[in-house]
Amino acid sequence: MRAVVMHAPRDVRVDQIDKPTVEEPTDAIIRVTAACICGSDLWPYRGIEDVDGPTPMGHEYIGVVEETGDDVHDIRVGDFVVGSFVASDNTCEICQAGFQSRCIHQVMMGSVGTQSDYARIPLADGTLVKVQGEPTPAQTKSLLAASDVLGTGWFAAVAAEAGPGKTVAVVGDGAVGLLAILAAKRLGAERIIAMSRHADRQALAKKLGATDIVEERGEEGVARIKELTGGYGAHSTVEAVGTRESMMQAIHATRPGGHVGYVGVSHGVELDGLDLFFATVSLLGGPAPVRRFLPELIDLIMTDQIDPGIVFDLELPLERAAEGYQAMDERRATKVLLTL
Amino acid sequence: MRAVVMHAPRDVRVDQIDKPTVEEPTDAIIRVTAACICGSDLWPYRGIEDVDGPTPMGHEYIGVVEETGDDVHDIRVGDFVVGSFVASDNTCEICQAGFQSRCIHQVMMGSVGTQSDYARIPLADGTLVKVQGEPTPAQTKSLLAASDVLGTGWFAAVAAEAGPGKTVAVVGDGAVGLLAILAAKRLGAERIIAMSRHADRQALAKKLGATDIVEERGEEGVARIKELTGGYGAHSTVEAVGTRESMMQAIHATRPGGHVGYVGVSHGVELDGLDLFFATVSLLGGPAPVRRFLPELIDLIMTDQIDPGIVFDLELPLERAAEGYQAMDERRATKVLLTL
Repeated sequence: MRAVVMHAPRDVRVDQIDKPTVEEPTDAIIRVTAACICGSDLWPYRGIEDVDGPTPMGHEYIGVVEETGDDVHDIRVGDFVVGSFVASDNTCEICQAGFQSRCIHQVMMGSVGTQSDYARIPLADGTLVKVQGEPTPAQTKSLLAASDVLGTGWFAAVAAEAGPGKTVAVVGDGAVGLLAILAAKRLGAERIIAMSRHADRQALAKKLGATDIVEERGEEGVARIKELTGGYGAHSTVEAVGTRESMMQAIHATRPGGHVGYVGVSHGVELDGLDLFFATVSLLGGPAPVRRFLPELIDLIMTDQIDPGIVFDLELPLERAAEGYQAMDERRATKVLLTL
Repeated sequence: MRAVVMHAPRDVRVDQIDKPTVEEPTDAIIRVTAACICGSDLWPYRGIEDVDGPTPMGHEYIGVVEETGDDVHDIRVGDFVVGSFVASDNTCEICQAGFQSRCIHQVMMGSVGTQSDYARIPLADGTLVKVQGEPTPAQTKSLLAASDVLGTGWFAAVAAEAGPGKTVAVVGDGAVGLLAILAAKRLGAERIIAMSRHADRQALAKKLGATDIVEERGEEGVARIKELTGGYGAHSTVEAVGTRESMMQAIHATRPGGHVGYVGVSHGVELDGLDLFFATVSLLGGPAPVRRFLPELIDLIMTDQIDPGIVFDLELPLERAAEGYQAMDERRATKVLLTL
């Protein structure tokens, strides 16, 4: 089968590799109908993370179940399914508490690869959620977004306790930051401040629910947020970048007693304990437990209440994946959808 | 009047200084009836924090109101009062959200000093809480504990979301850690694991509600907590030390989706962003908003439902404050009460 393989930084190819097979009785094999390129795939692409030999890429996916192991009971061959970037049993105490991304039996889908014709999904019953009905093309895109960027943005907004009466600041204008805006709006936030200096993303941020735009960054951005909030800072801040600057911007933009939801995969971040101590904000983040939100998100998508698929601004056949990586690296695309 | 003044590390004296006067119309002057020495007073005592010239010490206090400014309306001369280590207006949005320790008009009482015959309390109406009735000697000690160590331990337990069905781990066996155990028990925690290697403090921890003792520290301590919790880690962890080791111990001992309440004043702590990211725990800490809890704590004390005063294991007249500092530094005392 075809699979996107990263051989080295900036060297992404579509190779022929073996079709996956059921390895564990809890596995399912799906025929991937669409996948996408993630902002986090850019870390190895840019050489910031090591590429340890040829690596099958991808961890976002929708598809149709082709085969199931003997211990798969809820998911059936022929089901159209959405899963998240972490396979989880959905039964352990951590999953039951809503933190499936840290399931005691977790398997990172990035170690499996989903930018390919087929993918092996471990713990299929816990991981996959069946979509009822026949999605339209727009809904299909949105379901793919639910697999990671929407689910991650949603978690960030929930972790930041976005809700009625709240002012929410969003640091990061990538797909996750943009969809955190959508989430904050759905969760009832009163005011949503997008921190962005790119006109196209500002426009999308407003379309998704942002009420204010702040172009300044770092401590200047913090000062602007304070100015917009009577000197107090935001109640809720989403961090969707993963650098030290963005984390400090998020923490300092938040009022004491407020909440920061951080989902940017942390790179080179060191937090000063005393700074954090006197910020007196709640911090919750990490790999998003997308599985917690999938049933609700699928329902919102299939009833046309949300349209997160609009973050995809470049659609390419799998064969041209390398162009997609390049476009995202050069910020010519926010989010690339790969069709199969 | 007499006041405890730190001249240099390990050089604590009782000096004669001017009696404070009303400086702002919102001030009150109280006659201090008891004060105490805080674990945080040991940082400058040990030379870990700079001593910037002779510094009046203390930020915990109970006393009787002697004089009030023209804008003080709720607190009256003759009231027996308890306040916290941060003066706060109790009306700004931060205070109203329960984070009075970060009031927009906050004044740190450590900058004023309360180990003295009299103390000036800024923002008296917001800061002080009147005690109804005549406290017994045991209640008096407990009210003094409420001023900081009880309120701080209580906040840590609340921030860690201690409650019914929860397993709570407590890192730090000083007065704050010990009283966080009392708080966790009152909040209904099912299991409370005290991390302590001192027999006398282990005994006190058990008396206050600890169900288990873990003597191991660092990653060994973490492994022991995991072993005691089916491999998952604690739901709630209180950090009451302030070092990098204790913070990492608290974060790693907590299960994904769990909560860490940290109140040890951070010294030399740098948190690794990626470690924190994959821990996927909620972190909330900082200077405790003791004022939020004071009315409830005073009520619990005056109705003999809690007896936090038992953490005082050395009582000295103000004149002998230096001995108190030395005893705490040498860990011969957990918490020293100064009588006036």
